[in-house]
Amino acid sequence: MLHVKGGTLVTAEGSKRADILCGPDGKIAHVASTIETPTGCDVVDAAGLLVMPGGIDPHTHMEMPFMGTIASDDFYTGTAAGLAGGTTSIIDFVIPDSRTSLVDAWKAWRQKAQKSAADYGFHVAITHWNDQIYHDMKTLVEQCGVNSFKHFMAYKNALMVEDEAFLHSMRRAAELGAICTVHAENGDAVAYLQQDLLSEGRTGPEAHPVSRPPAVEGEAAHRAITLAGLLGVPIYIVHVSTQEGVKAISEARLRGQEVYGEVLPQHLVFDESVYEGSDWLKAAQYVMSPPFRPKHHQAALWGGMMSGQLQTTATDHCCFCAPQKEMGKTDFTRIPNGTPGIEDRMSVLWHYGVKTGKLSPEQFVALTSTNTAQIFNIYPQKGSLEIGADADIVLWDPDAERTISAKTHHQNVDYNIYEGMTVTGVAKKTISKGHLVWNEGDLRAVRGAGQYIARQPKSRNIRKPL
Amino acid sequence: MLHVKGGTLVTAEGSKRADILCGPDGKIAHVASTIETPTGCDVVDAAGLLVMPGGIDPHTHMEMPFMGTIASDDFYTGTAAGLAGGTTSIIDFVIPDSRTSLVDAWKAWRQKAQKSAADYGFHVAITHWNDQIYHDMKTLVEQCGVNSFKHFMAYKNALMVEDEAFLHSMRRAAELGAICTVHAENGDAVAYLQQDLLSEGRTGPEAHPVSRPPAVEGEAAHRAITLAGLLGVPIYIVHVSTQEGVKAISEARLRGQEVYGEVLPQHLVFDESVYEGSDWLKAAQYVMSPPFRPKHHQAALWGGMMSGQLQTTATDHCCFCAPQKEMGKTDFTRIPNGTPGIEDRMSVLWHYGVKTGKLSPEQFVALTSTNTAQIFNIYPQKGSLEIGADADIVLWDPDAERTISAKTHHQNVDYNIYEGMTVTGVAKKTISKGHLVWNEGDLRAVRGAGQYIARQPKSRNIRKPL
Amino acid sequence: MLHVKGGTLVTAEGSKRADILCGPDGKIAHVASTIETPTGCDVVDAAGLLVMPGGIDPHTHMEMPFMGTIASDDFYTGTAAGLAGGTTSIIDFVIPDSRTSLVDAWKAWRQKAQKSAADYGFHVAITHWNDQIYHDMKTLVEQCGVNSFKHFMAYKNALMVEDEAFLHSMRRAAELGAICTVHAENGDAVAYLQQDLLSEGRTGPEAHPVSRPPAVEGEAAHRAITLAGLLGVPIYIVHVSTQEGVKAISEARLRGQEVYGEVLPQHLVFDESVYEGSDWLKAAQYVMSPPFRPKHHQAALWGGMMSGQLQTTATDHCCFCAPQKEMGKTDFTRIPNGTPGIEDRMSVLWHYGVKTGKLSPEQFVALTSTNTAQIFNIYPQKGSLEIGADADIVLWDPDAERTISAKTHHQNVDYNIYEGMTVTGVAKKTISKGHLVWNEGDLRAVRGAGQYIARQPKSRNIRKPL
Amino acid sequence: MLHVKGGTLVTAEGSKRADILCGPDGKIAHVASTIETPTGCDVVDAAGLLVMPGGIDPHTHMEMPFMGTIASDDFYTGTAAGLAGGTTSIIDFVIPDSRTSLVDAWKAWRQKAQKSAADYGFHVAITHWNDQIYHDMKTLVEQCGVNSFKHFMAYKNALMVEDEAFLHSMRRAAELGAICTVHAENGDAVAYLQQDLLSEGRTGPEAHPVSRPPAVEGEAAHRAITLAGLLGVPIYIVHVSTQEGVKAISEARLRGQEVYGEVLPQHLVFDESVYEGSDWLKAAQYVMSPPFRPKHHQAALWGGMMSGQLQTTATDHCCFCAPQKEMGKTDFTRIPNGTPGIEDRMSVLWHYGVKTGKLSPEQFVALTSTNTAQIFNIYPQKGSLEIGADADIVLWDPDAERTISAKTHHQNVDYNIYEGMTVTGVAKKTISKGHLVWNEGDLRAVRGAGQYIARQPKSRNIRKPL
Repeated sequence: MLHVKGGTLVTAEGSKRADILCGPDGKIAHVASTIETPTGCDVVDAAGLLVMPGGIDPHTHMEMPFMGTIASDDFYTGTAAGLAGGTTSIIDFVIPDSRTSLVDAWKAWRQKAQKSAADYGFHVAITHWNDQIYHDMKTLVEQCGVNSFKHFMAYKNALMVEDEAFLHSMRRAAELGAICTVHAENGDAVAYLQQDLLSEGRTGPEAHPVSRPPAVEGEAAHRAITLAGLLGVPIYIVHVSTQEGVKAISEARLRGQEVYGEVLPQHLVFDESVYEGSDWLKAAQYVMSPPFRPKHHQAALWGGMMSGQLQTTATDHCCFCAPQKEMGKTDFTRIPNGTPGIEDRMSVLWHYGVKTGKLSPEQFVALTSTNTAQIFNIYPQKGSLEIGADADIVLWDPDAERTISAKTHHQNVDYNIYEGMTVTGVAKKTISKGHLVWNEGDLRAVRGAGQYIARQPKSRNIRKPL
Repeated sequence: MLHVKGGTLVTAEGSKRADILCGPDGKIAHVASTIETPTGCDVVDAAGLLVMPGGIDPHTHMEMPFMGTIASDDFYTGTAAGLAGGTTSIIDFVIPDSRTSLVDAWKAWRQKAQKSAADYGFHVAITHWNDQIYHDMKTLVEQCGVNSFKHFMAYKNALMVEDEAFLHSMRRAAELGAICTVHAENGDAVAYLQQDLLSEGRTGPEAHPVSRPPAVEGEAAHRAITLAGLLGVPIYIVHVSTQEGVKAISEARLRGQEVYGEVLPQHLVFDESVYEGSDWLKAAQYVMSPPFRPKHHQAALWGGMMSGQLQTTATDHCCFCAPQKEMGKTDFTRIPNGTPGIEDRMSVLWHYGVKTGKLSPEQFVALTSTNTAQIFNIYPQKGSLEIGADADIVLWDPDAERTISAKTHHQNVDYNIYEGMTVTGVAKKTISKGHLVWNEGDLRAVRGAGQYIARQPKSRNIRKPL
Repeated sequence: MLHVKGGTLVTAEGSKRADILCGPDGKIAHVASTIETPTGCDVVDAAGLLVMPGGIDPHTHMEMPFMGTIASDDFYTGTAAGLAGGTTSIIDFVIPDSRTSLVDAWKAWRQKAQKSAADYGFHVAITHWNDQIYHDMKTLVEQCGVNSFKHFMAYKNALMVEDEAFLHSMRRAAELGAICTVHAENGDAVAYLQQDLLSEGRTGPEAHPVSRPPAVEGEAAHRAITLAGLLGVPIYIVHVSTQEGVKAISEARLRGQEVYGEVLPQHLVFDESVYEGSDWLKAAQYVMSPPFRPKHHQAALWGGMMSGQLQTTATDHCCFCAPQKEMGKTDFTRIPNGTPGIEDRMSVLWHYGVKTGKLSPEQFVALTSTNTAQIFNIYPQKGSLEIGADADIVLWDPDAERTISAKTHHQNVDYNIYEGMTVTGVAKKTISKGHLVWNEGDLRAVRGAGQYIARQPKSRNIRKPL
Repeated sequence: MLHVKGGTLVTAEGSKRADILCGPDGKIAHVASTIETPTGCDVVDAAGLLVMPGGIDPHTHMEMPFMGTIASDDFYTGTAAGLAGGTTSIIDFVIPDSRTSLVDAWKAWRQKAQKSAADYGFHVAITHWNDQIYHDMKTLVEQCGVNSFKHFMAYKNALMVEDEAFLHSMRRAAELGAICTVHAENGDAVAYLQQDLLSEGRTGPEAHPVSRPPAVEGEAAHRAITLAGLLGVPIYIVHVSTQEGVKAISEARLRGQEVYGEVLPQHLVFDESVYEGSDWLKAAQYVMSPPFRPKHHQAALWGGMMSGQLQTTATDHCCFCAPQKEMGKTDFTRIPNGTPGIEDRMSVLWHYGVKTGKLSPEQFVALTSTNTAQIFNIYPQKGSLEIGADADIVLWDPDAERTISAKTHHQNVDYNIYEGMTVTGVAKKTISKGHLVWNEGDLRAVRGAGQYIARQPKSRNIRKPL
């Protein structure tokens, strides 16, 4: 048992002075303005701190096999790093290869994730369409706790799904009470531009953003939303990075479509200039898709979050060390795509969002935790501070500063994209299922302590655009 | 004490089975999945019902002097009717005439409202600018529990405020932690068009919508938002009725402005055809401003609510009986503007919104209660079901039907704009401050039981458009 | 020689009283306010008439093999009907099957078109990508007078081009000074929806518009424009029929892209109600793609033309008689797609556009002739009335009426979609290359008199979106 | 007589090799691919040059009394400078003070303008509304050759017109066949912001753009267009400088409204950084309204022109020398507003528009001459090269360079905002009414040679938004 004492509770709805008692079952047992500490119960002093639902990162890739290598953060190191940053749950991705069934792939990923230090769930990728997939989707939803499926419109000749298959998948997911998510970039256009750039001898990482310009994302987001609208089903766009994407989402929502958009903090902070300069490795370290954009896109992302048209933040956490990045030394299309970030998401969003006055603390909680829990139907188990919820809690110091560095971070990767950045807003203590796992610099993550989050299906209204 | 037993609690965040115990102080004393009934405590059976925060109507005009007459519902009859429909609080308007100071007007309105059966607060209108107003605003905010000010861009030569005065008022309100609200119609254009129509002999109510076409609202909404954006202050647009208005609001929100929009259910249901036909009185009964619109505007309003870009619903409840409406028999510009509706707001929104699948029950609560409480800074006292909140509760039968009629309604007015409409979704029981005041047809409203809601100022970030 | 005497010349730029002298070479020899009739020269009395450049229809399908049959109007009957309506040139389509090279197909089409009564040119369709196509495009542009290529985003597993092939084709066309045109409907979505409807037993023509809703066009138009923008090349969208399409075009143009849009008069006049009712054949006669739309799309098309964001009008003239339409009696996807219209385009546009005050006569000329000539680089040979231009002229009576009927039309097809419609604005006389070929009801079209219009390439600036 | 020999004629419609013969009446007597030089006729060698209609500047203020001083370029010096830059006509403004009738003011301005070296016309400003103005508008249109009226939404307590008066003026103008133009900035907001800035001690020219931010223009443009739309009349927005303005215009045009927008080249080239720095005079020299904007607005203006949504270019030529600018030394609101530019408009537009590939030469002619002539109903007398048109011609060297400087310009003002800028595209020779008035550096302007352009009314369709 744990008594979180003297803090200010902040949820998506409001803020108030209150204590929290975490029960021995890892759930919140009581919330009241003052609670008397039960005998034998540890006390966590929250005076001066904001007590918020633990962060949920709905987009991570731990130990993912990708582009001929494997992401360096595994489920243990990655989730542990998350705890150090205030994030107490992740939703990772099962990405079946073409020879493995969805269910078998899910089993394999479950296996790998046993070592997690924090709770975890899985989206499962659909890359083509056939009868077995139709049936496996049902199994996954009804028996495996999966309520979301992922689609890639990018990565032609690899993960890319065709529109017709995508329609089949969306229809099926809706029948089952699952929601579809999508990586929105036009894979044909990327393939064309990559080939074009390589043929011109442009092989360095500075060609990466040129091969996937903002319009390529805007096009795919618009298309995905249009297809979802034909069926009247919800759609969730991962890592929205452009004003074109925000526009597509907000216009559809105003037509009454159920569309959600996810933002990565790195897109709020970095622009395409990271790919310039003569330091090949440094540029390569920022190679992820979608890439960093001209600066004006950042305002669109902020506006999307401030207005409620974009609902979640994630990291697309996917770590590759120098030797891995160097696989693309002579061909930017072979640089493994991905950047780290799970440990810093919340600090970066607070620093650039709350401290600047763009977001309220309540919006911060909504964007880092509650909205994700609601969309993926794990609310109020996750994303809330109400009695009975999982005792996943972060104690936040809104005024503390820290300087981000690969030297001190807990991610298993040899660089940090935020290296040297000093941010205000720090996770002082993190509680996972009632256990204090991060205590002012002391990381007490336990390998295997994380549990699988079985997410239930949720029936949603069919809503054709108005 | 009152034990609300066996219902499903629905709040803006989610739904769950739980009991509520209302304490003797009129506040929510306990919430738990099951509560044992204390001795001597009345039990309200909520089995099969949705238990929601009581509705808040942020836009009513009880016993308002207007256009040479006085609105027929007074603070007692109007608030009592509200209770019968599930609405437990109102925010009415103090509208000073040119000879009365803001503070004196506020005192006079407080006096009139003593008879209220439900809790009430006041917005105060600013119609011009001078030093006394500058000082009175401070008094109202700091000593009188007022945290919102109203502006009319319509009603030229009467209530209309000029842009420069509006800017002064917005700046002052922001300094004080108050929010500005605005009736957005271009008063110059309306005056011109009214004169033009009358000069052509078009004197009947069918000329009313022609004198205030949708563009007149769109223009003013766009202007008000632009002016607020110059100062970086929030703005709340009352009774948004057009797609132009929704567009102005949603575009500004995407630029990061803090803009709110309010919808009246009547605009969701009626269109301009109500002004047609040979029954003068019937048409006149629908005369309100802004008027009913061509049908396609309704889709825009729904989209605005579904996407979260419009946040609240209200009624602009303002009743005039036949002899009052007939003051404009030979000149539509003299028909007292106003329609009744406080009793039916929630049923109509449920029927057309939730039953059709456009809105979830959670969104319904947000739109009828919680968002208003948050915007006008009375959350969680109002708009929530948490421990310590006012025990203002509606027990909602989502499947019950009722047929609306002036013969059976509790509003003190001789017609009902929804006459004959059968709606699904009915307030079975209403609890105000822990008292059961409406019990399946039995209205137990108590004259004078309502209390003044002193609303505190709230500091908001200055947010220039991104 | 022909002396057009006493008329009012209307061009895209302005109107003035003037005479025209057509030379023996079929070109305009002189234009002056008054011309003395040369000896031996015929006089055509134009008093009270508007003298305009002959219409150009840039989208026809004469005797096209399609969906298992052949369009019933051949190059002679179709072009002759055009002359009767004031249209003096067409641009038809060469659509190679998968076994025929572009150049061979072009030769075959040239052969078929020898019988034309009016001048004609060809767009050539690109449906996939390979080296031969790359080379054939050059041959067509440099040796065959082709400066435009057509792409179908619809008709999956038949004519549909994939995005990557489309990009290759656009890049190649730009190198050669040709322009790409595109049929914008998402073929995957159409295929999915068709299959879905058929599986539900919806086999009649009323399912046709359901299988290709407006969003399907909007999506493809947006995508095509995005792809063109990646390369900075111009794009021309054929038969724009939706507000989504107009929006995609106008937004791109405002970003500085060179985008053109074509409107069919039938989309301005008919809505989706044509597919209702129990008369199977009547509904089937309106089956074309894109289908007729809900009424509000018409306003978007008019707005697009009035503002200059849509530049041309065409017909997609493609005739199928009852026995042909009946091939789809039990399956709407087998109804040959197409409607007649070349004879009535100009009257219908005048009646609904100019007579109603939406368009000026000058805009009418731009939309029916001049803009097309400029875009497809045959101006001022076609589309103008200047000295040296081809003497293709229509003498227009702006006040005359005629009632359209299959009983009196000259198209070789057994119905007319405008049957019974009385329009104001009639081609009284038509002059083709200096010959009076239509004279107040007397059609003097000559089989084989039409000549091939060899269109020259035109270098255009590469314009990436601003 | 003058024979323009060997050039390439460029008009708004197309380009071709041709000669022009200017007759003794100052009109174009003949156009043909080759003309034999008549006896005694001077020859102007146009080999290698583009022969275009002389520029028309529809927005100048010669010797205008304004803000306590008088603009330094008078009608002679200003029009002469225009000739040196290829501009052969202006439309200046009659701005009556409150004591002078419209007609008397027009007479006074006619008197002042007698000294013009090039042809000139007048817009007349309407600043308030009464019966005399109603009648004087008729006199001006029917007897004085005025077909356009100007309105200021800025300059509160001076020239600013209220919305109701603006509506009266627009209605009246439409009855008379005149068009209304408008300076779109919200005067109330500017007055408020100016006062606010001064009260904060911000008195320098760097406060000027802060006092009139882009939204202030966007608001007023949107409002003006909305008001015009209520009446269904055309509206012309002068000096559009913001993306908000372009958006308001293009959206209205897509609704079928007849809206025109004018661009000043200086807004295409300069941004708000001109107001920075320690050189007070330099900053003050750029003080004009609307001010220079953040850079991204330039793309919107280019897009507006490229897409045809903005139709004209002008200069708002209004010169104040250093001692005049210094009237505002301690108060930026007293710096006379205005910048020079008539001499450089065409070169700057060519350099930044045509040379960069954004505009074709044909679009250049439309934007500098033809569109203005059409909108203000002086086409084809002005703005064309057809037989019978005024022989106002510029011979343009598309490849020549010149460096702009106050040391060499012909404007009567002591600075040039383009000082030191080297532009490609030069008016080599200018012909005004058949006379060679500018010949490769030799300015032969004749005081008083300019004639008044009496502009006829033109009936336009009433077009309510679709």
